[in-house]
This record gives sequence, C-alpha cells and structure tokens, in this order.
Amino acid sequence: MADLQDLERLLGDRLVRDASVLAELSHDSSRVGPEGAPRAAVRATSTADVSAALAWAHEHDVPVSVRGAGTGLAGGANAYPGGLVVSLADMTEIVEIDAANRTATVQAGVITAQLDARAREAGLFFPPDPASARTSTIGGNIATNAGGLRCVAHGVTNDSVAALVVVLADGRVMRTGARTRKNVVGYDLTSLFVGSEGTLGVVTEATVRLKPIPPGTPRTFRASFDTLEAAGSAVTAIVNGDAQPEVLELMDALSVEIIESFQPSGLTVPAGAMLVGQTVGLDAAAKAESITATCRAQGATETEISDTDALLEARRLSNPALNARGLKIGCDVGVPVAALAEVFHGIAEISERHGKRVSTVAHAGDGNLHSTVEAPDDAAGIAAADAVIDDITKLAISLGGTISGEHGIGSVKQHELPWQLDEAALDVQRAIKLALDPRGILTPGRGI
Amino acid sequence: MADLQDLERLLGDRLVRDASVLAELSHDSSRVGPEGAPRAAVRATSTADVSAALAWAHEHDVPVSVRGAGTGLAGGANAYPGGLVVSLADMTEIVEIDAANRTATVQAGVITAQLDARAREAGLFFPPDPASARTSTIGGNIATNAGGLRCVAHGVTNDSVAALVVVLADGRVMRTGARTRKNVVGYDLTSLFVGSEGTLGVVTEATVRLKPIPPGTPRTFRASFDTLEAAGSAVTAIVNGDAQPEVLELMDALSVEIIESFQPSGLTVPAGAMLVGQTVGLDAAAKAESITATCRAQGATETEISDTDALLEARRLSNPALNARGLKIGCDVGVPVAALAEVFHGIAEISERHGKRVSTVAHAGDGNLHSTVEAPDDAAGIAAADAVIDDITKLAISLGGTISGEHGIGSVKQHELPWQLDEAALDVQRAIKLALDPRGILTPGRGI
Ligand SMILES: Cc1cc2nc3c(=O)[nH]c(=O)nc-3n(C[C@H](O)[C@H](O)[C@H](O)COP(=O)(O)OP(=O)(O)OC[C@H]3O[C@@H](n4cnc5c(N)ncnc54)[C@H](O)[C@@H]3O)c2cc1C
Ligand SMILES: Cc1cc2nc3c(=O)[nH]c(=O)nc-3n(C[C@H](O)[C@H](O)[C@H](O)COP(=O)(O)OP(=O)(O)OC[C@H]3O[C@@H](n4cnc5c(N)ncnc54)[C@H](O)[C@@H]3O)c2cc1C
Repeated sequence: MADLQDLERLLGDRLVRDASVLAELSHDSSRVGPEGAPRAAVRATSTADVSAALAWAHEHDVPVSVRGAGTGLAGGANAYPGGLVVSLADMTEIVEIDAANRTATVQAGVITAQLDARAREAGLFFPPDPASARTSTIGGNIATNAGGLRCVAHGVTNDSVAALVVVLADGRVMRTGARTRKNVVGYDLTSLFVGSEGTLGVVTEATVRLKPIPPGTPRTFRASFDTLEAAGSAVTAIVNGDAQPEVLELMDALSVEIIESFQPSGLTVPAGAMLVGQTVGLDAAAKAESITATCRAQGATETEISDTDALLEARRLSNPALNARGLKIGCDVGVPVAALAEVFHGIAEISERHGKRVSTVAHAGDGNLHSTVEAPDDAAGIAAADAVIDDITKLAISLGGTISGEHGIGSVKQHELPWQLDEAALDVQRAIKLALDPRGILTPGRGI
Repeated sequence: MADLQDLERLLGDRLVRDASVLAELSHDSSRVGPEGAPRAAVRATSTADVSAALAWAHEHDVPVSVRGAGTGLAGGANAYPGGLVVSLADMTEIVEIDAANRTATVQAGVITAQLDARAREAGLFFPPDPASARTSTIGGNIATNAGGLRCVAHGVTNDSVAALVVVLADGRVMRTGARTRKNVVGYDLTSLFVGSEGTLGVVTEATVRLKPIPPGTPRTFRASFDTLEAAGSAVTAIVNGDAQPEVLELMDALSVEIIESFQPSGLTVPAGAMLVGQTVGLDAAAKAESITATCRAQGATETEISDTDALLEARRLSNPALNARGLKIGCDVGVPVAALAEVFHGIAEISERHGKRVSTVAHAGDGNLHSTVEAPDDAAGIAAADAVIDDITKLAISLGGTISGEHGIGSVKQHELPWQLDEAALDVQRAIKLALDPRGILTPGRGI
C-alpha cells in the first residue's frame, strides 16, 4: 500500500483520514453509493494542493474521486475503495469580477449562486442556473457541463466558460482558453474539459462569462393543459415564436401533485401538464402575454402571469419532493424540441405498457426531460423501474435525442453509451482518456 | 511509392492526377505556398469517398491535405510533396432544413452563403458570417472555427454546430453530437473537431443551428474618430451598453484609404479610425441612434445611420484591397474588449519604433484585430514586416489576448504557439493528435 506520509507532510491537516469526514466526502446525490471506503481525502485550498495530490496518486497508482459539492446525480463523485478523494469545496475564492470584460475568475469550489450574487453587485449575472445552484460548485457545473432553468435563453455551462486552470492526471498544471471572445489556438481544450466529469483532469480555477442583468421587472407565467402532448406542442410553438422566454419548464400532473404534497403552494394540479416560465427585459410583460396567448391557442385551459418567483420555486422543488418519497429511478433524456409532443405520447404508452406511473418534469424549452418512476427498494422493484426508464431512453434516442441532457454519464448511465455513440466515437473517447490519463487514476471506469 | 490503382478503381474520375488541376487544389489564400506537388487529389462526392481516401493514405503512410474552398489564411490546406489532396468542394448537398428544430444538415462542401440563402427561404439564417462567406465552405468554417462580422451578436462557428459526421485518420466514420440543444454524453467531440484545422479528421457532414431572421429593417451606422484609441474606447462602451449591435467593425485611417483606392465608395478617410456596424430588430433604428450617441460621447467627430449595406460592403473589401497592393504580412490577434484602446496605443508605438505603416481592421466588438504591414517581396523586407507583426502579437498576449482569433494556426503561426500555450497545454494537444492520428498522415506538422 502506498505511503501517505509524503503527502501528509505537504498538506498537513488538509489531508483528512477521519472516517466520518471521509464518509461524507464519499458519495454524491445519486442512488448509487461509493464503491468502497477511501483511504484519505485532500481538502484542497490551492491548485498546488491538487497538483500534489494527483502527483502522489499518479506515482502510487491510487484511484482518485473528485468532488465539488456532491450534488451530482450520476455517481461521478463517489469514492473508490482505498482511493483518494480530492475535494474542491474549500477553494471558494472569487478572484476577480472584471465588469468591463464581463468575466469572473473564480476558484472551483465557489458555490454557483454565490458567484451569481457577486456578479449582480456589478450589474451582471452568471447565466448557468441549475436547480441546485444554491449548493453546487462552479467546478462541478463545469465538470458536468450543467444545464438548468435559464439554458433555453443562455445555453449550457460550456457557453459561459472562457478559460480554465486544470491539474492533469500526473499533477502538471495547465491553462486552457483565453479571456478574449474568440480564440482558435490549437484544439479547444476548454470544451474538452467541460463535461469531462473528473476523468481527464481537475479544474481548480475558471474564467467565466457574465451577462448584463436585463432591465425591467421579470414576469413569471403559467399555463395548464389537459394533455401532456398539448403542452409539448405549445413548447415547440413558443420556442419558434417571436417572444422568447428566459425560462420554460414543464411539470406533468403527477409531478405537480408530488411537489404540492411535499410543500403546498396552492398550485392547482392540471389534468395533463403545466408550463411555467419567465420573461425578462423592458418588454417582459408583453412577452409573457404573447407566450400565454400562444399557450391558449395550443389548448391551454388556464393561464396566469405574475411578478413573483413562486411558480419557479415550485419547479425547483421537484427533486427534493421526489427524493422525499423514497427510491426513484429517473432519466435525463433530451429530444429535439419539435419532438416533444411525440415523446410525451410515447412515455404515456410506455407507462401504460409497464403498468407504472411515470412523473415528468422538463427543461421543456431545451427538450430536456426528467422522467421518474418510484421503485420499491428491492431488486425486482428496481429492475422493473429500470425497464421503464430504459424504454423511455430508447424512445428519446429513436427521436434523434440524447441519453443525457445535463446530468452526465458517471457510473449510472454507462450501459446506455452504445445506444447513442457509434463504435468509432466510443473508441475516440477512450483514446483521449488514455492519452491524458495513461494510468487511469482519475475517476476510473466512469464518464465514458 | 504507394500504388494509387486500388484507390483509382474505387473512385474512378474522382481521383485526379492532372497536374494543372492538382496545382489549383494545392494552395490556400495565405502567403505560403504548397510544400510540394501532390501525387493525386480526391474530389469526394460522399463520406464513403473520403473514407476510402483516408484508409488508403493511412495504409500507405501518405500525407493528406484537406481542403474546402481554399480561402484559408493560415496555409492549412496547402499540399504536401507526394501527398494526397482530399477536396470536399464537390460535396454540396443541403440535406435538410429542419425549420421546427432550427437546424440544417449539409455536406461539408456547401458554400457558407448558399446555406444562409436556403435558411432564409425558411425565415431563418445561419449566424456565422466570415467576410469570405460567398466562397468559403461550411466544412472549412468548421475546421477553422471561423469568425466573421456577426460574431459579436451570435458567437463563432462552434456556437452554431450541433453534430458532425467525421472520417477519422484510418478511414473509419464517426458521428459526434446530437440534434438536441443539450447533450452531455462523453467528451464534447464536436467542439474538439471544430477548429482542428484538418489535423484530427475530415468533416463530411454537419448539422448546424439556425436562428430566426430578426423582424424589421436593419440599420447600418458609421462613426469617425480622430484617434484609434478613442474608437477603441467607444467599442468598449458600446459592447457594455444597453443597445447591442449585430455587427461592430473598425477600420483605421490607412485601411479606409486602401479600400477607397481599391474601389471608391465615397467614404471620407477619418483622421484616426471609423467604426461601422449594423443593428437589427424592430428597434434597429433606436439602437443605431443609441450606439451613435455613445460614439459621440466618446469623441466621434461624425456619425451616420443608413438603411443600406454599403458601409459593411466597404469593410468586406479590406482583404481583397490589401491583396491587390502586393505582399502583406498580417495578424489575427485578439484582446479582451476592454483592452482595445490600449492595444491600439501600443500598435501606434510599434509602428513608429519600426518605421513601418500599419493598417488595422478589426472585428472590434470581439476584440479581434487584423493588423497588416506591406512588405517588399524579398527576404529582408519580409523579415522586417514579420518583426512588426511579432511585436503586435506579443503585445496582444501581454494584454491577456490570443495569437489567433479566427484564422487559426495552420503552418504560418506555429512558432507563436508557445507565446500563448504553456508546456502542459502543448503536450496535451500533441497527445490528442497522436491518439487520433497515430501515423500522422492528416495535415501533418500544422495546426498545433
Ligand atoms: C436538487 C438538485 C437539483 C439539480 N438540478 C440540476 C439542474 O437543473 N441542471 C443540472 O445540470 N444538474 C442539476 N443537478 C445535478 C448537479 O447539481 C449538477 O451536476 C452539478 O453541476 C454538480 O455540481 P457539484 O459541485 O455538486 O459536483 P459533484 O457532484 O461534486 O461532482 C459532479 C461530477 O463532477 C466532477 N467534479 C466536481 N468538481 C470537479 C472539478 N473541480 N474538477 C473536475 N471534476 C470535478 C466529479 O468528479 C463528478 O464526476 C441537480 C442536483 C440536485 C441534487
Ligand atoms: C477575403 C477573405 C475574407 C475572410 N474573412 C474571414 C472572416 O471574416 N473570418 C474568418 O474566420 N475567416 C476569414 N477568412 C479566412 C477563411 O475564409 C476561413 O478560414 C474559412 O473558414 C476557410 O474555409 P475554406 O472552405 O476556404 O477552407 P480551406 O481554406 O480549404 O481550409 C481551411 C482549413 O480547414 C481545413 N478543412 C477544410 N475543410 C475541411 C473539412 N471538411 N474537414 C476537415 N478539415 C477541413 C483545411 O485542411 C485547412 O486547414 C477570409 C478569407 C478571405 C480570403
């Protein structure tokens, strides 16, 4: 067994062996647990700490799990037996807000919502907005290329990343990208590391792009539909319309029911589904009117416009509300937006065929669906729920879709990779992994 | 010498050996010529043709140059002695315009402006807009991650690419990406191939994102300044203002002079520099007013708003106008937009120190500058001009900038790579190249 003392000498009490602390740093928020107990964790406070940790792990062939806040849903941050945990959670410095260039430079452990709050003091905001923004880290968002509520207007995390500091598998430190708006110097290593789920290197610092806060008062809107298909068609019409939303989310009837029973907010459960969203800018009210009019033209039975955030708050509760009900098996599929009505139709069919209730929430404007099946916590129950989710995933693929819109592959979706990627693409993924981490110490066996 | 007959049997007259045709397919639009005469060219009409060509080249260790229209400015498409040229220029099919999902699927040889024209028939447009759009190919735009005039509003080519069909170095065919708006399945191979300058694979087909044509009549605007620094400060103020332009370009006094002597359009040569740009949308006129007001507040001596495209046409002529004057040595540097005034100040100093007139045009809203020095066509003259451009490039780097904003590295900028990339980043680039093209047959010795 490799000796930890060298590393301990370098890191002092930033090297942790306490079993209860290790237990906390050993799992993410997915349903799969750690593969075993790690031998130690590094609570890094600098790029140098991370570099020392990886150099040591590389030398001694010790598997490393990397973690920000552990809100990930794919098992990516789970610990390895005898492995080393590298935690970025203590790297919380906001190094610079550069208002004139609309960028921020932050350490990887900064909480998403905290960066956003600091940017707002300068009249700017950080576009990526995962529902977990109050707890997730920027490093985790980058490593998963996180989505969120505002993606329909501003794109995914990758669209907001300009430059990175990365520690490579052997401990070397690399900078990618530039602070400029355009940069075509060599391969786009920034985009390669964004979404690489801790398998190619550890992000310790990032320069991200900010946007100006739109003027005026945002509006939220809601529209209820008798069927999921009608709600899906409305989304397609909205994203192809003139008035563009900042947020466009969907909750089906069962989801609203589950959220309301978790934390009642007075939302009426729709017969089919509810769209909720937000518009911004000086014309926010007019845009909300136009979008709800589109909804009515597409069959909405009831619409509402408001200047509070309550409707979106309900949507943000869907994950905790589902978790509170016990084990759930879910997916994160995506389809082209024009296929929304069709995918909802198919999900209803699959639900009926399996005799299982499926609840669906969606970042609808992006065509990104989280369908969930509750499962009794036993092998047969899990297998039955998995079968439903597999069918939904294959349906999405057959419509030109994806097995993961935002949560990533981690350890939970690897069996699905060949459903989407061809043999050559799988080979190229593996060749890149091997080239950058020849000993396979970084988040081994996950992500690709 | 490897035998071409196998390939000829497969490709028939799509395999070309005629010396005059080969000569045409052997160089791009940069000042460097081919490294030698190729042995043959493949004028591919399908992915299968490209696959056959690369499989053959791979088997026989023959260097391959890849070309679209040959408008590249970095020497990337130049032929190799005894090499094979793979031309995509005959793959011109627009496979699909999917209006409901706002995507187009096209073969790599489609001319940029032709895709845009077809998209416009469906009320959509293709955002990337290099000044070469009427001749360059989509495949070339993707391989260089081309920029252009509308980047300030819509980002670079990579921001408009959803999925690719790529032929790998050994002839295998791979699909990347998805038609969905979000997709986090494995590494982002799409972004890796975008900008890879023909060194990792050959793009044969692409699914790209379209946007709706903004309503209303576009306006163009112009503002003249007594100094370049004042124009630079105005750009910084505009991009941080409320009214956002669709296009924001800069021409310094010498550039306007050169363009006007090439093709007079009645533009008055400013004392320092001229900004030209465009606004779109129902509020295009109001935005143009607001932007020109910002210009006047920043010292503009004269401003003009128009509803014709003439001002932008002049800007598009800068490259041909410069070429008509003989040999020019230029750069493609980028700086953060807030550093524009500073970089212009520095360029003036460099010009004076070297006793050489420098002309600069810029995709100013992106901080992307093309500074040019005319050079007598002899070794000493070229060396003197190169020294000026080297100093400008190092200045840009010192301001947090980049050695290439949009043209890429090709063979002409390789000596500059270490100015921007650290040792670890260079190593990672090379490791990726080696992993994907172990025999080094694809555009060897260029790009990274
Ligand atoms: C209630 C709830 C709501 C959510 N909503 C959304 C949503 O709307 N959109 C969305 O996309 N996701 C959502 N998620 C999932 C999760 O929040 C995101 O994946 C988030 O980006 C993870 O950040 P983290 O800091 O918690 O990362 P972790 O969970 O700690 O790690 C996630 C992955 O990234 C790697 N990693 C973490 N930090 C680094 C680093 N610095 N360098 C390299 N690799 C690193 C880990 O190894 C792991 O593979 C939600 C989760 C919850 C619990
Ligand atoms: C007048 C003029 C104006 C220009 N304005 C701009 C501008 O505003 N913005 C800008 O960014 N550039 C500009 N350029 C440069 C040039 O037009 C772009 O780089 C363009 O993207 C090249 O396209 P092409 O089809 O001509 O590619 P080529 O010149 O044929 O090739 C360029 C590079 O891409 C590779 N390549 C080409 N096709 C493929 C493929 N299918 N698969 C893999 N690799 C491939 C080649 O190997 C080469 O390395 C301009 C050039 C000129 C002459």
